[in-house]
Amino acid sequence: MAKVLKSPKGMRDFGPNQMAIRDMVFDKVKNVFKRHGALPIDTPVCELKEILTDKYGDDSKLIYELQDQGGELLALRYDLTVPFARYLAQSKIKNLKRYQIAKVYRRDNPSPNQGRYREFYQCDFDIAGSSDEMLPDSECVKIIYEILQDLGLTSFVIKVNHREILNGIFKLCNIPDDQFKTVCSSIDKLDKLAWPEIKKELVDVKKINEDSVNQIYKYVQQSGRGTFIDNMLESELATLPETKKALDNLKLFDEYCKIFHIDHVVEYDLSLARGLDYYNAIIFEIKLTGNTLDIGSIAAGGRYDNLVGQLSDAKNYDVPCVGISLGIERVLTIIEKKLASEGKQLRSTQCYVSSVGPDMTKERLKLINDLWAADIRAEHSIKAAPKLMQQFKNCEDRNIPFCVIIGRNEVDNGVVKLRDLNLRKEVEIPREKVVEELNARLAKL
Amino acid sequence: MAKVLKSPKGMRDFGPNQMAIRDMVFDKVKNVFKRHGALPIDTPVCELKEILTDKYGDDSKLIYELQDQGGELLALRYDLTVPFARYLAQSKIKNLKRYQIAKVYRRDNPSPNQGRYREFYQCDFDIAGSSDEMLPDSECVKIIYEILQDLGLTSFVIKVNHREILNGIFKLCNIPDDQFKTVCSSIDKLDKLAWPEIKKELVDVKKINEDSVNQIYKYVQQSGRGTFIDNMLESELATLPETKKALDNLKLFDEYCKIFHIDHVVEYDLSLARGLDYYNAIIFEIKLTGNTLDIGSIAAGGRYDNLVGQLSDAKNYDVPCVGISLGIERVLTIIEKKLASEGKQLRSTQCYVSSVGPDMTKERLKLINDLWAADIRAEHSIKAAPKLMQQFKNCEDRNIPFCVIIGRNEVDNGVVKLRDLNLRKEVEIPREKVVEELNARLAKL
Repeated sequence: MAKVLKSPKGMRDFGPNQMAIRDMVFDKVKNVFKRHGALPIDTPVCELKEILTDKYGDDSKLIYELQDQGGELLALRYDLTVPFARYLAQSKIKNLKRYQIAKVYRRDNPSPNQGRYREFYQCDFDIAGSSDEMLPDSECVKIIYEILQDLGLTSFVIKVNHREILNGIFKLCNIPDDQFKTVCSSIDKLDKLAWPEIKKELVDVKKINEDSVNQIYKYVQQSGRGTFIDNMLESELATLPETKKALDNLKLFDEYCKIFHIDHVVEYDLSLARGLDYYNAIIFEIKLTGNTLDIGSIAAGGRYDNLVGQLSDAKNYDVPCVGISLGIERVLTIIEKKLASEGKQLRSTQCYVSSVGPDMTKERLKLINDLWAADIRAEHSIKAAPKLMQQFKNCEDRNIPFCVIIGRNEVDNGVVKLRDLNLRKEVEIPREKVVEELNARLAKL
Repeated sequence: MAKVLKSPKGMRDFGPNQMAIRDMVFDKVKNVFKRHGALPIDTPVCELKEILTDKYGDDSKLIYELQDQGGELLALRYDLTVPFARYLAQSKIKNLKRYQIAKVYRRDNPSPNQGRYREFYQCDFDIAGSSDEMLPDSECVKIIYEILQDLGLTSFVIKVNHREILNGIFKLCNIPDDQFKTVCSSIDKLDKLAWPEIKKELVDVKKINEDSVNQIYKYVQQSGRGTFIDNMLESELATLPETKKALDNLKLFDEYCKIFHIDHVVEYDLSLARGLDYYNAIIFEIKLTGNTLDIGSIAAGGRYDNLVGQLSDAKNYDVPCVGISLGIERVLTIIEKKLASEGKQLRSTQCYVSSVGPDMTKERLKLINDLWAADIRAEHSIKAAPKLMQQFKNCEDRNIPFCVIIGRNEVDNGVVKLRDLNLRKEVEIPREKVVEELNARLAKL
């Protein structure tokens, strides 16, 4: 008898019913990735600790480290972006449209109601390689749009901003260059905290000039659809060359979104900051809207042109990248609730092989062996002489549509009974026709 | 510039070409599991350290432990069997036919030539629940047979033994009860070491009586097909009640194997021991034979009736289990070599969208957007005005069968060129027919 019987804090087991939903959702997500010609890669669950250092800002404290058992110092991956960049730097691949669906690890405070765990899946899509402006960037949001559509989630907004616009705002508000990052990480909290609290942090803790902070607030309250970019291009932000270029790029981005018929869900929002260190240009965040639970953002990403070079062992090595990461756990929570309310159960096994009476085990095995040989999904009891009602109950519990039944009479007469569990009707068919008949009925389901 | 640029020792990245093969193989394995009505479960990559203690004999030293960062002491899973048993004990589920395909972790000496890594996939199939003798046990070997057949591996032997037969041998050779396990673990090495070395370990290191050791050797050299069990039933082994029962069970097992048409690959081998602590009855090991590389066993398993009870927090809790684990990495090594020698490349993207000349980017995006909307797998360049030859080269490199091409003339005339990359032939078709025409051609591939 064990003293402790549990899985690690914030990490979950998934039983067969949950897995059926997960497999269905992952298949849909993969289908969208493949529709865009994305290729899968896989990387280890561990990385050298050094690779993960200085990539995640304040959140680096959430990294799981392995014990030093002699050899390399390792840590569990925190996201799929840094391992992808390490893979690109190491393999010297300069062009790749990749996807990866895998678990990541964060020693965060678990909060199941908000879909926050210590072990969870991310679905990442990234385009690496020198490109013309905004072509890969717009495909990233297009892909998330298609995924959410295919999953039946229709109420969401894609928030967009650009690090150079934030830099321009900070410059116009007289923030010194070396404080851009720390101000940025406070602004990032605007969707969780009220402005007075953030102002307090900026002025009291981070010692930023109060006039500057008040000025910043005027900017970061602004947001809007495509015409918003035109307005910004008329504002003083456009007097700064780098910021003007970023606004021109967002204008082109918006034109591409129009072609993709997704501009109606795109909102430009100057308060969007994203906490991670490695983004340098466009940044995105997707939030569910409407009546659904308030579970925050479900996807986020952006452009990180310098991360591969930073990890590379070659000088002046450069692979510009842009990508988006879907936090599938939150989406799964919604879909699980939806399916549960619809009472739908996903079906896998096609036929249950039953027997009645003693000494039927070997005949049952012969029969199920024929079904397996025909690639019909079939199961039977692990008891030699199970009760018929128990076998029928198994069919119903598992949502199995057909059941074949044999007893002494059927074997002697070379027949089987075929039961349709939905219609609750049985017919007798010749033993040698069972595969043919089942295939015909399964084709009609 | 990073100081170290590598993945952890013994852990690998998989690029798109390797992943295409892996996905194909995993799909085939899953298909067999589902054919037998097995259901997927998923467990965390970490377990509480305590759960893994005392389960793996001498190999416990290979467990990866996480750093104590405050909170629970964790370790990476060593196999999928103990986490499954923990899941059963915790969830109180008493009947389940499950499969799980996931990575496990061992701080072993990596040896890529023998397919031995520190992070590798296992494909596990287990049947939990009280059953009649040998029904789930025979299904385990049947499933491995089907998987290997479906993967095109036809030369293999399924070795079978029973822990109670080994116990009977040790008893007849006058080994004290408390030395059964240590003798067993020496015998387990017989397929890697010659007998004199094992004898030396038993006599010199483990201080086992030399006469007993010589007697054991007479037994463990014996092996054979089904009739071998009949011979053993006539031998002095059958005088011990537990061993007699085990032999009767293997006889029934062999009859079930005959019904499944797999008895021709089953060999009963008294030297098969399996090192793990938790097996208590039938044990299996599958080895490739013939001209393939000598890569040892590719699958192994057995019955472990007491493990769930050992992990449970309830008294006298019991869930008998039997299972088999396929070490898919070794199988993948063989299949990768086979596919490479056949020069086959797996295909995913169906159409490449090309443009010629300047100012075609938006027209290209409109066209690809229509293909995506029709669920046609399509990609295009991330450059605004890529060279045509470079675009054709991309198609060839990626084994993409079709390419649609637009330039100023095509756009003005409302047409596109459709190129068949295999035939190297182009036709002009109306712009509005492109989805229809592509679907018709893709259906014929």
